[in-house]
Amino acid sequence: MKVAVAGASGYVGGEVLRLALAHPEVEIGAVTAGESAGSALGAHQPHLPTLADRTIAETTPEQLAGHDVVFLALPHGRSAELAAQLPADTLVVDCGADHRLTDPKAWARWYGGEHAGSWPYGLPELPGAREQLRNSTRIAVPGCYPTASTLASFPAVAAGLVQPEVSIVAFSGTSGAGKAAKPHLLGSEVMGSATAYGVGGGHRHTPEIVQNLATVSPEPVRVSFTPVLAPMPRGILAVASAPLADDGVTEDQAREVYAKAFAAEPFVHLLPAGVQPATKSVVGSNTAQIQVAIDPDAGRLVVTAVIDNLTKGTAGGAFQSVNLALGLDETLGLPTTGVSP
Amino acid sequence: MKVAVAGASGYVGGEVLRLALAHPEVEIGAVTAGESAGSALGAHQPHLPTLADRTIAETTPEQLAGHDVVFLALPHGRSAELAAQLPADTLVVDCGADHRLTDPKAWARWYGGEHAGSWPYGLPELPGAREQLRNSTRIAVPGCYPTASTLASFPAVAAGLVQPEVSIVAFSGTSGAGKAAKPHLLGSEVMGSATAYGVGGGHRHTPEIVQNLATVSPEPVRVSFTPVLAPMPRGILAVASAPLADDGVTEDQAREVYAKAFAAEPFVHLLPAGVQPATKSVVGSNTAQIQVAIDPDAGRLVVTAVIDNLTKGTAGGAFQSVNLALGLDETLGLPTTGVSP
Amino acid sequence: MKVAVAGASGYVGGEVLRLALAHPEVEIGAVTAGESAGSALGAHQPHLPTLADRTIAETTPEQLAGHDVVFLALPHGRSAELAAQLPADTLVVDCGADHRLTDPKAWARWYGGEHAGSWPYGLPELPGAREQLRNSTRIAVPGCYPTASTLASFPAVAAGLVQPEVSIVAFSGTSGAGKAAKPHLLGSEVMGSATAYGVGGGHRHTPEIVQNLATVSPEPVRVSFTPVLAPMPRGILAVASAPLADDGVTEDQAREVYAKAFAAEPFVHLLPAGVQPATKSVVGSNTAQIQVAIDPDAGRLVVTAVIDNLTKGTAGGAFQSVNLALGLDETLGLPTTGVSP
Amino acid sequence: MKVAVAGASGYVGGEVLRLALAHPEVEIGAVTAGESAGSALGAHQPHLPTLADRTIAETTPEQLAGHDVVFLALPHGRSAELAAQLPADTLVVDCGADHRLTDPKAWARWYGGEHAGSWPYGLPELPGAREQLRNSTRIAVPGCYPTASTLASFPAVAAGLVQPEVSIVAFSGTSGAGKAAKPHLLGSEVMGSATAYGVGGGHRHTPEIVQNLATVSPEPVRVSFTPVLAPMPRGILAVASAPLADDGVTEDQAREVYAKAFAAEPFVHLLPAGVQPATKSVVGSNTAQIQVAIDPDAGRLVVTAVIDNLTKGTAGGAFQSVNLALGLDETLGLPTTGVSP
Repeated sequence: MKVAVAGASGYVGGEVLRLALAHPEVEIGAVTAGESAGSALGAHQPHLPTLADRTIAETTPEQLAGHDVVFLALPHGRSAELAAQLPADTLVVDCGADHRLTDPKAWARWYGGEHAGSWPYGLPELPGAREQLRNSTRIAVPGCYPTASTLASFPAVAAGLVQPEVSIVAFSGTSGAGKAAKPHLLGSEVMGSATAYGVGGGHRHTPEIVQNLATVSPEPVRVSFTPVLAPMPRGILAVASAPLADDGVTEDQAREVYAKAFAAEPFVHLLPAGVQPATKSVVGSNTAQIQVAIDPDAGRLVVTAVIDNLTKGTAGGAFQSVNLALGLDETLGLPTTGVSP
Repeated sequence: MKVAVAGASGYVGGEVLRLALAHPEVEIGAVTAGESAGSALGAHQPHLPTLADRTIAETTPEQLAGHDVVFLALPHGRSAELAAQLPADTLVVDCGADHRLTDPKAWARWYGGEHAGSWPYGLPELPGAREQLRNSTRIAVPGCYPTASTLASFPAVAAGLVQPEVSIVAFSGTSGAGKAAKPHLLGSEVMGSATAYGVGGGHRHTPEIVQNLATVSPEPVRVSFTPVLAPMPRGILAVASAPLADDGVTEDQAREVYAKAFAAEPFVHLLPAGVQPATKSVVGSNTAQIQVAIDPDAGRLVVTAVIDNLTKGTAGGAFQSVNLALGLDETLGLPTTGVSP
Repeated sequence: MKVAVAGASGYVGGEVLRLALAHPEVEIGAVTAGESAGSALGAHQPHLPTLADRTIAETTPEQLAGHDVVFLALPHGRSAELAAQLPADTLVVDCGADHRLTDPKAWARWYGGEHAGSWPYGLPELPGAREQLRNSTRIAVPGCYPTASTLASFPAVAAGLVQPEVSIVAFSGTSGAGKAAKPHLLGSEVMGSATAYGVGGGHRHTPEIVQNLATVSPEPVRVSFTPVLAPMPRGILAVASAPLADDGVTEDQAREVYAKAFAAEPFVHLLPAGVQPATKSVVGSNTAQIQVAIDPDAGRLVVTAVIDNLTKGTAGGAFQSVNLALGLDETLGLPTTGVSP
Repeated sequence: MKVAVAGASGYVGGEVLRLALAHPEVEIGAVTAGESAGSALGAHQPHLPTLADRTIAETTPEQLAGHDVVFLALPHGRSAELAAQLPADTLVVDCGADHRLTDPKAWARWYGGEHAGSWPYGLPELPGAREQLRNSTRIAVPGCYPTASTLASFPAVAAGLVQPEVSIVAFSGTSGAGKAAKPHLLGSEVMGSATAYGVGGGHRHTPEIVQNLATVSPEPVRVSFTPVLAPMPRGILAVASAPLADDGVTEDQAREVYAKAFAAEPFVHLLPAGVQPATKSVVGSNTAQIQVAIDPDAGRLVVTAVIDNLTKGTAGGAFQSVNLALGLDETLGLPTTGVSP
C-alpha cells in the first residue's frame, strides 16, 4: 500500500513515518506539511536517516491523491476540510480530533464550529469497534489520553464492577503537546517539574472518554479527568479509579474481569499481580501494560495503564486500525517491544 | 540554638543541614550517621561546601547530647529507640514515621511492632496543630505525601464542601525514596518514566492522611491514595478530588473556602484563578502552592497542590515547627522562594 | 540600595530577583520588561510568590531612574542603548554581552554593529578584575561559559603550567538559552538528548574566553571551545584541557597552582583529590567547584569546573561584583550552598 | 540461528534480546544470568512482554550449549572464563572487555590479571576489521565509548588530516554504567546533573581507542579521553578534536575525508553541513550520526558523533558483526531508525 503523510514535520507525522518504515506492506509516498513545505524531511525528523533527503511537499488534495492510505496529522479543523476533498475509496486516517465525537452537541461545546461527523473509532479493543473498522475507508484515531483511559476503565464499567463514576489522573510526556514552540513547553520549564492542566474537566479528551465508556455502560457515566504534564518526552500513565459496585469484590475477581476482556488482545499486556507498569517499558511500542488493584479501605478499584502516547496512543493505534481496515493481520509491522532503559 | 543532625548523610539530613546553614539562630553541632560515620560530610553532601570538612560521628545518644535541638532523620523504628534516650528538655524532631500515628492499631497494621506513642504533629496549617507545637519538646514531622495531600483537602473537608471520600493521586520526585541504592531507583530506570506504586491503598502514608482529615471531619473519612514515582529529583504534585456535597457549589465559593483557610498562612500560596501550580516553582522553598477547581460534569472538587518533598514536605516543615516550639517567629530562616527554572 | 531589574520576565531577570530577595541590603524597586509589560510578575516568575502581585513596567529610562543599582537582563544591543541613557552615578550592571569585549574588532567580528566600549569585567577571581570593580559604576557581567571556562583554565595558563592552547568542551543546562520559545529548546527535544552547537569556534563566548586568558598569558592564546546543550535546566560543566608545558608536571604540582590561585576566594571550592564536581552540587549557589587532573599518557592537564549558569554564571556573579563596587562585603547575601539532590 | 544470551537480566542482555526479537533469522534459546536465575525474564525486562514468562536459567556452559550464537553480557573476567568452555564452532560474542585489547601489557595495566588473548574486533567500519570478522567464530564487541570515539576520529587520523593527538570528551547516558545499584547512579543524583569521571586518562576505554587509532596511524597516537555521566538513560555524544596537520585545511576538505570513509557504510550517517547530531536521533537505532567542523582560530578539527550506547555501541554493533561472521547481509534485522522525540 502506498501511504501519504500530511503533517510530516510534526511529532505524530514523524511517528507515522517511523512505523511506516518498519511495516512490510507500506511504500512511503508523499510527505507533506504546511510551513515546512519545501525543506528536507531530515531537518525535521533527524531520527529517520533513510528519509532524510525527501523533500516535504505542500499539504494539498493533489499531493495526497494517488495513495492507498492517507494519514492526516493535522490540527483539528484542518483534517475534516482536507478529508472532504479526498476520494471515497482512499483509506483516510485522521490522527486529529475532527471525527471522534459522535454527538454534534458535544463537538459544538468542546471544539466549536461545524461538526464534520464521526468516523469508525480506531480503538479495536473497545467492544464493537473492530467490526466497524473492518473494510472501513475512514478511521478516526482516538486521542492518546482516551486510549489509555478507556483501556484502563472500560472492562470494569462493562462488567458492572464499579459504579460508573470514574476518576482519572493521567501523567503524560510532553510530545503529546506537539512541536509548536510554546514557553511552557520549553525544556527549562518542564524538566524537573510536574503541572496539571485543564483541571476541572476542561480537557477536550474528557467527552471522548465519556463517549467510549457510555458504549459499554448501561447507566450514565461521569468522568473526572485530570491530565498532568510530566517531565518526560513520551508515555502516558493513567490512574483510573471508581467506587466498587459491591464492597466485597476481591482483587482476584477484578483481575479476572480484565484478563477476560484482554485475553485475545495482542497489544494489551495485563501484568502479573503486584507488578506496576512503567511508561518506559512501552516507549516506541504499540503495547499497553495494565495492572488492577482493589483498595478495600476506600472501596475503590484502582487501575493503572501505560502506553506510548505517540505509538499505541496515536500512530501505532492508527496502523493497527489500518491493518484491520485493509484485511491484513492486525499486528502486521507493529512493535510490541519497548526501547528501555 | 545548637542543633544536632542524626542521619546527616541522607537526603533528609542534607536538607536539614542546608536549611540550618541559612537559619540565623542555628549553630550546627554534631552531624552523625550509621555506616557513613568516620567519613567527611563533603563526600555525602557536596552541595554544602562550607561543611565539607566536618567528620561524621556515629549516631549515639552521647554524640547527640548537649544540643538544644536534635533532628532525627532515620529509618522508622530507629528514631523511637534513640529518642527514648535523649533528655526530656531537648527538642527532639523526628523526621521519620515513628511518632506520627496516634492510633496504636493503625501503627500495628501499617508498620508492625510496638507503637512508640505519638508526638505533636508538625503541620502547623492543620487546625489545632499550632497550639500543640508551641512549647513542645517533641515534634513528629509529617510525611511528605500527607503534607501535600492534607493541605490540598482539609479545607474542603472541614467546610463540608465535599463528601469525605477523597481520591488523591500524587506525583513525587525520587528523593522521597531516599538515598539507599535500589535498582528501580537508578537514573536509567526513572528518567523518562512514570510508575505508580503502593496502589490499592498500600502506602503507609494513607493512614496518616486519613488521621489528618479525621481531625476536621464530622463524618468518617475514606481516602484512596495512589503515589506515582516521577522522573524528577524533587517535588510533589498532589491531585485531590472528592464528590461535591452539593452539585451547585461554584468555583468561586470553593476558592473562598481555601482563601479563608490559608489567609494567614505564610507558607501557603493560593494561586490566581486558572493558574496551575508547577512543582518546579517550589524547589528548595518552604512554600506550598495550591489551586482549586470544580468539575461540574463530574460533580467533583479538584484541588492541586505542590510542595518540595524535602523542604515543606520534611526539613522545612520541621524547622517551621521548631520555630514554633521555641517561641521564635514561625518563618525565621525559611525560604519562600523556589530555585527555578 | 534600591534595585531595578530590566528584563524581569526572563530567566536572568528571575534569578536577579531571587537573589535580590535574599540580599539584606536590597530593596526591590522597578521590575520592567518589553512584551510582558503590564502583566503580573507572578505569571512569569511563579517561584517568587512574595513578588507575585508586582506589575511589570515597561523598560524605559524613566522607569529605571531613581535607583541605586540597575540590572540590565536584555538581549545584546539593547543594553548599551539603554545604559547610555542612565545617570553616570547609577551602578549599571549589564548581564548581556554589550560591554564585555575590549577589542572593537572582536566586537565587530562576533556581534557586528557599533562597539559600545567595554566596562569593568565582573569576574572578581580573574587577576586584576577586583581592582577595577571597586567603586566602578558600570559592570559587564561575564558570559556563563566564560565564567566556568576561565576559572578552569586561567591559573594553569598564568603559571605557565600548560601551553596556551586550551581545548574546552562545556555542557550547559538549557536555561542558558533563555526563555524565548524555539522548537529545538522544547522539552520533547532536549530531554534525553545531548547536542553540540556552535562547533568549530562559532560560539560568541569564544573571544571572551580568549580575552580573559590573554590577560594572564605572556604568549598568544588559542582556545577551542565547544558548547553542548545538556538535558538539564541549570548548570555548566566545563572540561578544559591543554598540553603540559613540561611532561614531568605532577598532579600535586598542578593542584598546588590551583590551590594557590583560589586560596582566598570565597566562591571557588577546589575539591579533594579524586573527587569530581557535579553540576547539581552548585544549583542555586554562587559557588564554583573545581578539580584538577594530569593525564600523563596524553601529556595534558585536564580541569573540570562546575557552576550554576544563572547564579555564579550570571546573576550571582553580578551581585558579587555589585557588592565590590559598592564597598560591601563581597559575599553579602550570596548563597554558597546548592539545592541538591 | 539459535541464540543464547548470558547476562539476560542486565541492560546489555536486554538490548541483545530486543534486537534478537526483531531479527528474522534468530530463534531465542537460553536466557541465563547469575543472581537472577530462577526468576521470570519479565521481572527484569518489562519492555519485552513477549518474553515475559521465560524463566532465567543459570549461566553455565551446559545451559549455553547447543546454540549457534552465544552472547556474553557479563562483567569482565567472567566472559573469558566461560568462553573457554564453549565449543570452538559456536559463534561466541563477548560484549565485555576480555578480548578487546591485543597487547597483554595494556591488559595487565588497565584490567590486571591474566590476558585472555584478543578476538576479531567488532567494529566493521574500522579499516581491516570487516575482513577479520567474516567467518570468525569469536567476536570482541567494542566498548561503547570506543565505538563513538573511533568513528569520530579514525578517518582524520588515517588521512593525515590531523596530528595524532586526539582530545575526546564524551557525554554518556547512564545505562552505560549498568544496572548494578550504586548511590551515584540513583535518579536523584543523576537527573539534572553532569559529572566527569575517570578524568586524567583513567577510563579503561582509553587504551582501546588508542589501539584502534594506531591501526590507521603511521605515527604514535596520543589520546586524551574524558567521559561525562549525563542526565539521560541512553546515548553517547563524543566531541573529538585534534590539531590540524596543516592550518590551511578547509571544512569542505575535511568533510570530503569523512564522506569518503563512510560512503559505503550502512550505519554511519554524515549529516549535511552545519547540522549537529543529537543523541536522541539515534535512540534504539544502530546508526551513528556524525558532523565535521574546522576551527580556524584554534587550528583544530572538531568532529561530533552520536550513537546509542546500547545499540550501535554494544548489542547492535554485536549483531552487525554476527551478520558478517555468519555470511548474512550485514544490515539484517538491524534498525536504522531512532525512537524520537
